[in-house]
Amino acid sequence: MNYSNLNGTKAFKALAKLTPFDVKSKLTASRISHAAISAGGGLTYNYGAMPIDDSHIETFVELAQEQQLIEKYTALISGEIMNIGEQRLVLHHLTRGKLLGNHQLIYADGEEKGAFYHEQLARIEAFSAAVRNGKIKGSTGKNITKVVQIGIGGSDLGPRALYLALKGYCVELSTDILEARFISNVDPDDPTEILEDLDFESTLFIIVSKSGTTQETLTNQEFVIKAMNAKQIKGLVAAKHIVAVTSKTSPLASSSNVLDAFFIDDYIGGRYSSTSAVGGVVLSLAYGFDIFKRFLAGAHDADLHALQPDVLNNAAMMDALIGVYLRNVLHLPSTAVLPYSQALSRFPAHLQQLDMESNGKQVNRFGKPVDYGTGPVIFGEPGTNGQHSFYQLLHQGTDTIPLQFIGFIKSQRLNDVETDGSTSQKKLVANLIAQIVAFACGRDHENANKRFLGNRYSSLLWANRLEPETLGALLAHYENKVMFQGFLWNLNSFDQEGVQLGKVLANKVLAGGESDEALKAFIRMLS
Amino acid sequence: MNYSNLNGTKAFKALAKLTPFDVKSKLTASRISHAAISAGGGLTYNYGAMPIDDSHIETFVELAQEQQLIEKYTALISGEIMNIGEQRLVLHHLTRGKLLGNHQLIYADGEEKGAFYHEQLARIEAFSAAVRNGKIKGSTGKNITKVVQIGIGGSDLGPRALYLALKGYCVELSTDILEARFISNVDPDDPTEILEDLDFESTLFIIVSKSGTTQETLTNQEFVIKAMNAKQIKGLVAAKHIVAVTSKTSPLASSSNVLDAFFIDDYIGGRYSSTSAVGGVVLSLAYGFDIFKRFLAGAHDADLHALQPDVLNNAAMMDALIGVYLRNVLHLPSTAVLPYSQALSRFPAHLQQLDMESNGKQVNRFGKPVDYGTGPVIFGEPGTNGQHSFYQLLHQGTDTIPLQFIGFIKSQRLNDVETDGSTSQKKLVANLIAQIVAFACGRDHENANKRFLGNRYSSLLWANRLEPETLGALLAHYENKVMFQGFLWNLNSFDQEGVQLGKVLANKVLAGGESDEALKAFIRMLS
Repeated sequence: MNYSNLNGTKAFKALAKLTPFDVKSKLTASRISHAAISAGGGLTYNYGAMPIDDSHIETFVELAQEQQLIEKYTALISGEIMNIGEQRLVLHHLTRGKLLGNHQLIYADGEEKGAFYHEQLARIEAFSAAVRNGKIKGSTGKNITKVVQIGIGGSDLGPRALYLALKGYCVELSTDILEARFISNVDPDDPTEILEDLDFESTLFIIVSKSGTTQETLTNQEFVIKAMNAKQIKGLVAAKHIVAVTSKTSPLASSSNVLDAFFIDDYIGGRYSSTSAVGGVVLSLAYGFDIFKRFLAGAHDADLHALQPDVLNNAAMMDALIGVYLRNVLHLPSTAVLPYSQALSRFPAHLQQLDMESNGKQVNRFGKPVDYGTGPVIFGEPGTNGQHSFYQLLHQGTDTIPLQFIGFIKSQRLNDVETDGSTSQKKLVANLIAQIVAFACGRDHENANKRFLGNRYSSLLWANRLEPETLGALLAHYENKVMFQGFLWNLNSFDQEGVQLGKVLANKVLAGGESDEALKAFIRMLS
Repeated sequence: MNYSNLNGTKAFKALAKLTPFDVKSKLTASRISHAAISAGGGLTYNYGAMPIDDSHIETFVELAQEQQLIEKYTALISGEIMNIGEQRLVLHHLTRGKLLGNHQLIYADGEEKGAFYHEQLARIEAFSAAVRNGKIKGSTGKNITKVVQIGIGGSDLGPRALYLALKGYCVELSTDILEARFISNVDPDDPTEILEDLDFESTLFIIVSKSGTTQETLTNQEFVIKAMNAKQIKGLVAAKHIVAVTSKTSPLASSSNVLDAFFIDDYIGGRYSSTSAVGGVVLSLAYGFDIFKRFLAGAHDADLHALQPDVLNNAAMMDALIGVYLRNVLHLPSTAVLPYSQALSRFPAHLQQLDMESNGKQVNRFGKPVDYGTGPVIFGEPGTNGQHSFYQLLHQGTDTIPLQFIGFIKSQRLNDVETDGSTSQKKLVANLIAQIVAFACGRDHENANKRFLGNRYSSLLWANRLEPETLGALLAHYENKVMFQGFLWNLNSFDQEGVQLGKVLANKVLAGGESDEALKAFIRMLS
């Protein structure tokens, strides 16, 4: 395989010479309808309002070939060691299906990984059904009606965002729902609030930590056990109310303090773990395994679409290439994610981790510093809320911020009212359309304060309605986009060495600061 | 008054020539303890880990004088028309007290504004007490136990963030709490979810819209009224369950559909309205007027501190000047806000509006384009959650992102457990300290992938505990910082013309797109 830095490729040099397409004057109906790529799961990616034309796309094709995007993706799903720093395979795609045919086998840790993930899925199906139908009860005989996930980072942000994103759909379906809550922060106020009015007898806790050594998660596990024991409820056995999601070799896996354990492994990074047991246990308990299975099917469909070699048929690859053009040719350092769906309220927070932790790197996959921008800052809030908040800067600030809109024709809960001649959903979609065009085309005005310069670029991911398949495809689209960008920038998107130093120093602070003058000064100040 | 663009000042030219202070090698204990300024309300601002030394501060003093920061702040609180585009006074400081002495009077709209805000406060006190003690009941005779605020932007983000930020304190005090919820988005899924399990008979709705014409808010008011009427509850009268917060001249003020109305005016911008009736009604209902009064007292204290002419005694001004150095000399286009307190989970979302809507402008206060960066992108999530998410990029990404840490010695709820020899709160603070030092000092390593370059700049706002006064000071500190930055950049921080075009086009979309080809193409696609 050929691993080159972005600016070492011929195609990037050619790309850097191209003039941005003038969206402002050329956003025609024909352009909009042609700039569409199916992204799987019923989702379509539209890049009509992005500053690229055929000449860019020709160069994208060359860049994709030079950086061997499809070859590297294929190597990754074939089980090659793509996480080179940690010498690990990268197998999150396999948690939602085999992309290279059912015959394909990947061996590691003395087991076949497809079978391993499949076995865990079957165990999740059986366990979640038993809890939901009351065969497995709490230790005092009550049915389980609530689940609390204890985890941080990838064990929290993805599962939490997905739980919120699926709720309205399941309510509308009249699915039985076990309400889920999440404890993540080591701040004692976090578990204190969640436990405040909790009925321990009907609650199941899910402790999620791959290593079984995450400080926040173990601390919060202890916090919960102490709170449970302090209640002195007759017959209540804490261990019967806790399951673990962890690796087979972690201390949690063999703990006598848990009712059961579901397994992940070193080949599923935290931020890519929503389709593994990390997301699977909580979502299957909350909404039933069928919903989770449909979500996985959507993700698998998007993964298949991302295997298309032609960039004009590969939404994730196109999104990735456009992002590199914006970041490295137009030098735009941040990106806003703007879902026009209240159900996706925490999805931008998940993408923040996915993108910024994967590609926020200053060295290439061989540990050599790169001299170009890598992962951008990602932020966002749902529309129309954001319109009344930070859109002022997006429209009229001094910097251009590329925008990623997400929208749906139908509402998720299908409940609506008509006011002033239109439903709320119609108003929501009208605002989405209005914003895309306002950003792209701007408006001239003799008063400069009322002027909109236009050429503020955006893309749109849209579907008929936010259903489990759509959500799976949405998640996988972004995972694959981030993966392709890592290949383009020649990074290892699958480690996170940047989180280590803080852990080391936090332990040093807890030990009094040792000989570190700055640590000791702050300890004196904050105690 | 002298209104110059930033780069037209002598002091800025001098500032641009200064070398950044090398935090990495010079973060001494003495520097840390001396770089502290009281910000009011028990809050302290520390800039030890920012790249400035005495030479920068000398230039800051000159820049503050050239741009007449204190004179402009004084003019603003004296009732001059500082919102020049809309020809309006800017009076949010007055909602929390008189800064120029009790004798000072400000007349507008035929009334004295200090008396007007005071009268509204007295009405809020009486009304909230009557609801909380059961003198005012729901229309079917039930006590009110829940409040739902319907508003968007400044009528939502600030009040919501503050409600969450005060909850733990009030729980710990054993205050009676009327639970509050918030409906903001025009997405019908938002009201549908909030209304799902609501007991209308014991709920009071607060409709918040200064103009009384906000599309989202009026739509959601209708949504709620229709849902209430659809229940066909005997004796239930929707109008008896709704109060308005609006201006005296708005259609809402005289509506027969509300139980009562509390007033604001044109001199309180949405993003500055948390200390007016916009935040006052909901917070006083939820936690009692005394808590809200203490919150106002903290904000007033911070406002007084911001009047100090000496930058070494003025935390908001120092924060503003450092921000301009980072933005316009070091060219750093975004800033992360990182509160080490779960109670502040939505505070960054409020700051996003406050800062990005105020200073995300490309023209100066006279409507002339500026040729320097103005308001940065603001984003953030609570620590330690963020550490397991986007901190990878903050530590090892290719761009430097300035950081604003917020922390407290004690937890808010004062409930904790000890594990591995330390409480959760100790671990939280240890992580905060560790991060400041890790970002500032970095770590050398022979493996570049494990290397931290350091000189990633941060400030810290800290207090003993997050109490109502602290929160008020925190809010006002940022408002005053943003105000000073607006003066430095020569902007009008108090209008938001950038939100207008989207509103116009959304109506055009609802009317079918008229002759706009791009709008019509998107309408066809999304229907």
